[in-house]
Amino acid sequence: MTDLDTLSVNTIRGLCMDAIQKANSGHPGTPMAMAPVAYTLWQRFLRFDPDDPIWPNRDRFVLSEGHASALLWSLLYLTGVRTVDPDYEVLGRPAVTLDDLKSFRQLDSRCPGHPEYRWTSGVETTTGPLGQGVATSVGMAIAGQWLAARFNRDDFTLFDFDVYALAGDGCMMEGVSSEAASLAGHLRLSNLCWIYDSNRVTIEGHTDITFTEDLAARFLAYGWNVTTVADANDLGRISRAFHTFRAETERPTLILVHSHIGYGSPVEDSPKAHGAPFGPEGVRATKRVLGIPPDAGFHVPDGVPDWFARGIGARGAELRTAWEKTFDAYRSAYPDLADELERIQRRELPDGWEAALPTFPADPKGLASRDSSGRVLNAVAKAVPWVLGGSADLTPSTKTRLTFGGAGDFEPDDRSGRNLHFGVREHAAAAVANGMALTKLRPYWSGFLIFSDYAKAAIRLSALMEIPTVHIFTHDSIGVGEDGPTHQPVEQLAGLRATPGLLVFRPADANEVTETWRVVAALRRAPAAVVLSRQALPTFDRDRLGAASGVARGAYVLADADRGEPEVILLATGSEVALALAAHEELTAEGIASRVVSMPCWELFDRQPREYRDQVLPPAVTRRVAVEEGSTLGWDRYVGSAGAIVGMHTFGASAPLKQLLTEFGFTPERVSQVARELVASG
Amino acid sequence: MTDLDTLSVNTIRGLCMDAIQKANSGHPGTPMAMAPVAYTLWQRFLRFDPDDPIWPNRDRFVLSEGHASALLWSLLYLTGVRTVDPDYEVLGRPAVTLDDLKSFRQLDSRCPGHPEYRWTSGVETTTGPLGQGVATSVGMAIAGQWLAARFNRDDFTLFDFDVYALAGDGCMMEGVSSEAASLAGHLRLSNLCWIYDSNRVTIEGHTDITFTEDLAARFLAYGWNVTTVADANDLGRISRAFHTFRAETERPTLILVHSHIGYGSPVEDSPKAHGAPFGPEGVRATKRVLGIPPDAGFHVPDGVPDWFARGIGARGAELRTAWEKTFDAYRSAYPDLADELERIQRRELPDGWEAALPTFPADPKGLASRDSSGRVLNAVAKAVPWVLGGSADLTPSTKTRLTFGGAGDFEPDDRSGRNLHFGVREHAAAAVANGMALTKLRPYWSGFLIFSDYAKAAIRLSALMEIPTVHIFTHDSIGVGEDGPTHQPVEQLAGLRATPGLLVFRPADANEVTETWRVVAALRRAPAAVVLSRQALPTFDRDRLGAASGVARGAYVLADADRGEPEVILLATGSEVALALAAHEELTAEGIASRVVSMPCWELFDRQPREYRDQVLPPAVTRRVAVEEGSTLGWDRYVGSAGAIVGMHTFGASAPLKQLLTEFGFTPERVSQVARELVASG
Repeated sequence: MTDLDTLSVNTIRGLCMDAIQKANSGHPGTPMAMAPVAYTLWQRFLRFDPDDPIWPNRDRFVLSEGHASALLWSLLYLTGVRTVDPDYEVLGRPAVTLDDLKSFRQLDSRCPGHPEYRWTSGVETTTGPLGQGVATSVGMAIAGQWLAARFNRDDFTLFDFDVYALAGDGCMMEGVSSEAASLAGHLRLSNLCWIYDSNRVTIEGHTDITFTEDLAARFLAYGWNVTTVADANDLGRISRAFHTFRAETERPTLILVHSHIGYGSPVEDSPKAHGAPFGPEGVRATKRVLGIPPDAGFHVPDGVPDWFARGIGARGAELRTAWEKTFDAYRSAYPDLADELERIQRRELPDGWEAALPTFPADPKGLASRDSSGRVLNAVAKAVPWVLGGSADLTPSTKTRLTFGGAGDFEPDDRSGRNLHFGVREHAAAAVANGMALTKLRPYWSGFLIFSDYAKAAIRLSALMEIPTVHIFTHDSIGVGEDGPTHQPVEQLAGLRATPGLLVFRPADANEVTETWRVVAALRRAPAAVVLSRQALPTFDRDRLGAASGVARGAYVLADADRGEPEVILLATGSEVALALAAHEELTAEGIASRVVSMPCWELFDRQPREYRDQVLPPAVTRRVAVEEGSTLGWDRYVGSAGAIVGMHTFGASAPLKQLLTEFGFTPERVSQVARELVASG
Repeated sequence: MTDLDTLSVNTIRGLCMDAIQKANSGHPGTPMAMAPVAYTLWQRFLRFDPDDPIWPNRDRFVLSEGHASALLWSLLYLTGVRTVDPDYEVLGRPAVTLDDLKSFRQLDSRCPGHPEYRWTSGVETTTGPLGQGVATSVGMAIAGQWLAARFNRDDFTLFDFDVYALAGDGCMMEGVSSEAASLAGHLRLSNLCWIYDSNRVTIEGHTDITFTEDLAARFLAYGWNVTTVADANDLGRISRAFHTFRAETERPTLILVHSHIGYGSPVEDSPKAHGAPFGPEGVRATKRVLGIPPDAGFHVPDGVPDWFARGIGARGAELRTAWEKTFDAYRSAYPDLADELERIQRRELPDGWEAALPTFPADPKGLASRDSSGRVLNAVAKAVPWVLGGSADLTPSTKTRLTFGGAGDFEPDDRSGRNLHFGVREHAAAAVANGMALTKLRPYWSGFLIFSDYAKAAIRLSALMEIPTVHIFTHDSIGVGEDGPTHQPVEQLAGLRATPGLLVFRPADANEVTETWRVVAALRRAPAAVVLSRQALPTFDRDRLGAASGVARGAYVLADADRGEPEVILLATGSEVALALAAHEELTAEGIASRVVSMPCWELFDRQPREYRDQVLPPAVTRRVAVEEGSTLGWDRYVGSAGAIVGMHTFGASAPLKQLLTEFGFTPERVSQVARELVASG
């Protein structure tokens, strides 16, 4: 440990303490403990160029214990990481300034309470909800392996990056990290390194009160390589551990680091060090212990930024520029692949990718939307070679397997495969998909809609990060039938629709499925939930009815009154659109003028100009009936005070679908009766 | 293995195959494989009396792989388990008849697709969503230990029951089971036995494609006892494994059973055996292999029911009647404890439990609802000795610690403690609380509202089961402040409100907190989510304003126009009620007549008679403004087409609360401005 090493580590600690103290809010415990580990990784190992923080082959660093954000902000500041704009242009200005650090946790600071992807360059993924970072890192490692398999050639190594994640006791207790670790062990992701900050302290006290398992043995059981660092302040041992990781070619590596929360402070090794500033006196006392000038706030000694520039900066610049040179040669040798790679980096799709999207002929019998979606997904994936994904052990049911020639399986012995087997691990599946999306692949994962509950925290992060993860959910209602209420979603649509930025699609027939995918596959800055039926849905006769391209506007008129303003509007999504059409026909036969509006995506409809929205739902027509086999929550917005909702007010039941439709009132007779009563009521 | 053993096992298999075939729907694979294990457990070990399936000291059997429900239905039928009514009276009629079995998965059959608590007697918990059963079983085991510590005396052993859970690969891959297993290992729950049905087959294929960890080693790392049965058909080995479990006094036990999915059928050992009937030919072929008359459907050989009666029946009856005799003596020796135990069994509370509920004096500064709730919870728990719970490592923040003398911690060396440490394991915490509620204790668990996402699947099950689990969620809005959008719930309230049967409370001040707990503590057949603030809330002056007892009706008039009908109604919950009051005062000063309605529980309000609802929200007053720091989804129901909603349309941000309130428009000025505009608009 050189003087500059020590000085750098303690500079980081000082900046963290000061930022937290100035904000009077934050978590100093982990930054004080783990500064030497993060420093060693960044300064000596991380292949990351602060001048180009989105260089494709950079190593990824994930701060899974996101509450330690001050540690990351200090590193981004000291290494001078530059800003990337939303169009992936690297700008000259730094991502984090001293002013940002001084306004830690204040509105508009680039140093918010937890690391936020897309808000601060250099943040590889949003973290804070525990376990998410490590689970997401598995997706990045998968993406790294896949990119290597697709793009590397004997004479060109474009991808060999590593993924590091720093995690605490909280991350290790969360179920999602167990799922992800088991999957990573199975997949033998030797490019993945988790660093476990074991400080034996949690918010409620010592880990002895609840977390006494033999964690190293658990990870060995998952098939990981495990190595231990007895002292988080021993840079030599830390370096040896990273070398051990780099030498490992068969397994992911866990580095178990024994650390001291709040190191150097009066509250060292106490839960008090976790989530509150040390106080002005505490900060001064700690600085004295660490040899930091006690009264100089935000002190950066001469030589420290330059030391980082000569370490991570010089190494990163050299590797990145060498990579760019390699890539120039690659472009000459493999122009198509190079073009592909550049599109991936810009989140663009191949020209003409839409050409092969299927259209479906009218068919009263039709097919389940999970089936039509499977066909459309295959067309999309064939046209876009970096679309890949899998299911949480439900592929035969969710119909998400890529079946065309060469699609293959992503397994330890074949890194080019495009079908992943996530296992019965929904939460990890969603987080892993996020990690792949952050690496700019186009991932999807699938499960039953009911199991979106298991993955909600990761789905939320995809929305918060504004990344185009595609969440595919089949078996979307009581249409599940015999499996009963444990498997019949009721409230899940409402929960997903309430999530800001998430586009929730529930297409009504096969052609709406195609139009859904036309929107979803092209998304660059939003995730989507594609919600599909288990049961067959008729394919509508689009010669007679509104065009399915209306999906892009969120809602559209599917069928209308023969002439004039309708007396009543029927609104529906997914499997209930056919029901609304049947009711519409009954009403028409009785001389009641009705309109059917298909509303596959509320969020897109809400974004349309008022003029369009008023065309679809004329304000003057206040008699409206919504039909959806789910919670009624949210529909009032569209049906208004004078409207009615045919929805689910209880859980479902176990029975064949037909019995359930009658039991819960999803019949053309019931829907037309509700409409009739509205019309009659004036 | 006697002839009657073989005959019984194959009778179970035959019934399962026939029920699934007749329904043309269901999962035969596991029942065929695990019939010998379930049979051995029930017939030779389970201390369960079919004549009294709610005998308090019965062993619990949890079918965590709930898709194998036919196995449980067959056992309930063959052992003649009797029906229990909703008031916990045991009735003469059987819980499951042959007709029920024959109408497996049909509407109203007592044999639905998955086991459903409260619908079929003998079902200890609803299962199907994988991992939930095993996690819930940990709560049952904790409850067993706690009941023993509280009620056993040197001369009386009232509680020593064991908890068994049967789980498959899916359960073992889910994160929630990892969390629960880690907790159970830490707590050294030696009364807990998980049986792992390892058939190496999942829906997508062989477990080799995704699940290759060394599971036995993982459980040893958790601190479990692990024993293996090499052949699921070897009743002797199975029995020895159960003896091993019974002899273990320090650790939970995992019995790893190597089994053959779809045993005896043409699709044995194939994913095809999992979730589809064998077909008439397949059933016949299998019956031939197993020596079951191939053409006799639902065949129950003479002697089999009697064999069960002489096994589990006789053993259970003897144990139960002995227990009742013991309890009679106990009642004489410990009348108070006996009374307590009887109240627990009937889900009643001690007389006068409400007496100690605090009321809070008016206080403009006030206190956070998490703080007032902590005080009220302590009062409740002191009055109701079987209220117990804990937090997912956030007790100092959620303020849910029971601090009165003797409350103690539930740990391996003290089973009488009432504070649990769930660790950073929200999902397991909720499932464990469910298990405790199913054992009729009054459990709660707590976390931040944002982390309700992690636990949603278990929260849902509490609602589906109609059990009074209390989910306490603090840090309920952007009021979280500096921790930022990863920790600020936006859509969680909508998702919880959409869940049928779950009562969601968001009290506005300390006295509403008291009234919330008055309702919540007395719930017998519904779970509640209690949603609380991080920040201080003023305690309203109830001499001037509506009484907090209005909480029981879900919504009530807190402040009203001085005279006459209001021109505009302000609706709010939780921290936004004070904001609505401030706006009300501004409007009043301007001569605009407004009303403030506090709406702490939508679900209770929706259940009030129309007359009351129209009193609170007069239909003639259509100018209404809702204010809530969350998604607007659902509020349209109350504000109507002419109303407005001040809510969150994006995620939050990291900043001090005051900045956020301005940034997102939660100020009296903004609210009164929206109201003013509505009034002006006519």
